[in-house]
Amino acid sequence: MVFYLVGLGLGDVKDITVNGLDAVKKASRVYLESYTSILCYGLDKSQLEEFYGREVIDADRTCVEQNSDEILEGAHKEDVVLLVVGDPFGATTHTDLVLRAREKNIPVRVMHNASIMNACACSGLQLYRFGETVSIVMWSDEWQPESFYERIAANRERGLHTLCLLDIKTKEQSIDNMMKGRKIYEPPRYLTASAAAKQLITIAERIVERGETPAYTEDSTVVALARVGWENQKIVYCTLSQLAEVDMGDPLHSLIIPGETHPLEDEMLTTFPRQ
Amino acid sequence: MVFYLVGLGLGDVKDITVNGLDAVKKASRVYLESYTSILCYGLDKSQLEEFYGREVIDADRTCVEQNSDEILEGAHKEDVVLLVVGDPFGATTHTDLVLRAREKNIPVRVMHNASIMNACACSGLQLYRFGETVSIVMWSDEWQPESFYERIAANRERGLHTLCLLDIKTKEQSIDNMMKGRKIYEPPRYLTASAAAKQLITIAERIVERGETPAYTEDSTVVALARVGWENQKIVYCTLSQLAEVDMGDPLHSLIIPGETHPLEDEMLTTFPRQ
Repeated sequence: MVFYLVGLGLGDVKDITVNGLDAVKKASRVYLESYTSILCYGLDKSQLEEFYGREVIDADRTCVEQNSDEILEGAHKEDVVLLVVGDPFGATTHTDLVLRAREKNIPVRVMHNASIMNACACSGLQLYRFGETVSIVMWSDEWQPESFYERIAANRERGLHTLCLLDIKTKEQSIDNMMKGRKIYEPPRYLTASAAAKQLITIAERIVERGETPAYTEDSTVVALARVGWENQKIVYCTLSQLAEVDMGDPLHSLIIPGETHPLEDEMLTTFPRQ
Repeated sequence: MVFYLVGLGLGDVKDITVNGLDAVKKASRVYLESYTSILCYGLDKSQLEEFYGREVIDADRTCVEQNSDEILEGAHKEDVVLLVVGDPFGATTHTDLVLRAREKNIPVRVMHNASIMNACACSGLQLYRFGETVSIVMWSDEWQPESFYERIAANRERGLHTLCLLDIKTKEQSIDNMMKGRKIYEPPRYLTASAAAKQLITIAERIVERGETPAYTEDSTVVALARVGWENQKIVYCTLSQLAEVDMGDPLHSLIIPGETHPLEDEMLTTFPRQ
């Protein structure tokens, strides 16, 4: 039969496609890739189970990466579904699962859906004017990498917009729990748009201190997006220093650093509030 | 009430989301943006009407661009839906419509869906390793622009993949019909992956003739994609000169020129046939 990778899109339980829902309903087993869903989705498994009227099996990243055999078991004879937030190919993990399925001669079918990679166009910035996407990691006192900066600068140089995905940390263990081998996890954390703005300003300041010109300043205008695709999505268009003080609310957040903009893009950007 | 922009995704009538379908069912009027749908979707309005059990009004690009008042009429008091192939923000036209709705204080709600801009990750190439997207125009004997080449080269220089969207021509008039003011249109035409490969090879040859080194050669490997998201989607991984001879079948086609690839990307690419 078929191994289905079904995208859940960005919003609520009903942002699955009708084809995706059909696959869920007729499958023998339905897994939920829960690593990203914990935060990105704001939904728990029980809401999905209620909407589908069937059991959904929790599959965290470890399970997806290490126990692909378990997920794919029996998929020759019956349909198996793995639900993934956004589009199924958002994470390399799923590419790997497709490869394992093909090795076993199990047909794979992908039900695509929206992901932040295309839905960020709700900012009014045109997708074909985006350069390389960057991931901004959450800084700690000890660890403040700046590797993403070079890619933002390279995009800006070519007049391109940069979509910045913001770090999420799930299933972290405290050192104490890790030492004692207790599988107790800290509450999930995510990088907010305002914290990301502060990090970006710090990087620009360090570059100025070195006597160089940064690719942006604290006065550069950026777009912050929160909960794209939800009823309560929020989009703010302001300077980096203003964004550092804005509370975008619940996760997930992301950030766009525009390059050169066209008049229609500008017209759309100015419809968004500054806080 | 609400003006809904509903993405239809890439596949068949059932690739609409459940939320999107709900909006269609309760709206007073449902428009279909038919400019792109003619070719991209492989579906006609009647199939949508049958699936929804209601009338769908044809709105070609001219109508969407020039008669936004007509589409938005009454949207204060009742729900109006505009169906768009892929994701609603794939074209600037829809950004403009959102602006017109906001001017009229009509609430706008977007139902995102998959588009080629994120679904191209089915190639196994990771989205965050893509640079700027380019559009390859269909050459004629008289008009052979190469403007997209510089952007492919800039992406390659940074090791980034390039998604190439291939030209579609709909609602073209013959010179005779245009002169006589007859609204008779030629059958839609689209740039095939093999024709695009030939154009790309010609550009590389011209660069070699000028004594320069092109960003790719006819021996560079590329990924051709046809009908992404359909049951009969086809993905081919081969050299540009091989692709020039491959028939990818019905539209729409697109092309990816990979940059530097990671081992997992390579592993996925080699699962695709060479023709």
